Amino acid sequence: MTEQKATNVTWHDHTVSKDERAKLKGHKGAVLWFTGLSACGKSTVANTVDHLLHSQGKHSFVLDGDNIRMGLNKNLGFSAEDRTENIRRIGEVAKLFAQAGNFTLTAFISPYKADRDKVRALLGPGEFIEIYVNASLETCEKRDPKGLYKKARAGEIKSFTGISDPYEAPEKPELTLDADKKGIDELAGEVVEYLKKNGYLAA
Amino acid sequence: MTEQKATNVTWHDHTVSKDERAKLKGHKGAVLWFTGLSACGKSTVANTVDHLLHSQGKHSFVLDGDNIRMGLNKNLGFSAEDRTENIRRIGEVAKLFAQAGNFTLTAFISPYKADRDKVRALLGPGEFIEIYVNASLETCEKRDPKGLYKKARAGEIKSFTGISDPYEAPEKPELTLDADKKGIDELAGEVVEYLKKNGYLAA
Repeated sequence: MTEQKATNVTWHDHTVSKDERAKLKGHKGAVLWFTGLSACGKSTVANTVDHLLHSQGKHSFVLDGDNIRMGLNKNLGFSAEDRTENIRRIGEVAKLFAQAGNFTLTAFISPYKADRDKVRALLGPGEFIEIYVNASLETCEKRDPKGLYKKARAGEIKSFTGISDPYEAPEKPELTLDADKKGIDELAGEVVEYLKKNGYLAA
Repeated sequence: MTEQKATNVTWHDHTVSKDERAKLKGHKGAVLWFTGLSACGKSTVANTVDHLLHSQGKHSFVLDGDNIRMGLNKNLGFSAEDRTENIRRIGEVAKLFAQAGNFTLTAFISPYKADRDKVRALLGPGEFIEIYVNASLETCEKRDPKGLYKKARAGEIKSFTGISDPYEAPEKPELTLDADKKGIDELAGEVVEYLKKNGYLAA
């Protein structure tokens, strides 16, 4: 657990309830937590789902690994400690977005099971949807759109997930996407279908 | 400037544009940054504005000092350095909420002008609305709902804004609320009126 440094604080209830927010939005809020290796397609699938949801009048937003690291988490690196703090902060922000009634799509490698489980524990039942974007290291390394695997293999990047750092695959994700065999649109469709089937798209 | 530790990151554009988000929400997104002494009424006014906006079908959310300090910023204390990091993180989160098209109401003492100005610089023109909740130290100390001033005067709380730590009032806030003379509902009404007059309540 992260130590609570600030004392003298009390919890403020928001005057607008979760149900009232859902009623205005026309749907429930939830965190769609995409996890997987670098270049597995997390960001692209998340952004496509965001686009699909928006076109259906749903309120969604993507918290993206690279974007967050240029803003909120710009003072964090890639050590195990910093990766944990990275995911902790993102989990807290995703929770706030979900409390506000949004579908919050997060696209982070989030390699450690314990870190993902901590975020799950922050949220209520059904509010954390873990989506494993399952692509083999071979597939990801073949894509390598930013040339990061090449650099990692050459030893130019230390602590690179899948090469020099571990990736702990989810054991019981709500959804697994087969990113070796299927294209982006098909995978994004599977996510929206999951939301529909499980009652998320109604208030 | 906070040092950028994470390298190998590139900015991802969201596939849904700001205008498209505003069209769905029916209004613009902006950060309403409430600042003022402890017990000046920041949180209460912000939550009342949130309630008013919600009742008009607007999408808003309050980021609250105490709530954030029990979540995202639980690993920060009240040293000058931690206060700065506190406000920096909140500014980044408020920016994300505004990018998602929401009215983001933040209720933090945010005592240092430089920290508030850094948040202003993060946002686009018109997206940062600084609201000075102006109540005299006398008024705040008389209210003291959590007994914090009493503890600060007794030396039980160190670094307490207005007592042992400075508060730098805004020089050119977009709006100043006279919290010595006016009640919560009147002040909240002034904020909504500001948004209306300045075109925020339409897409």
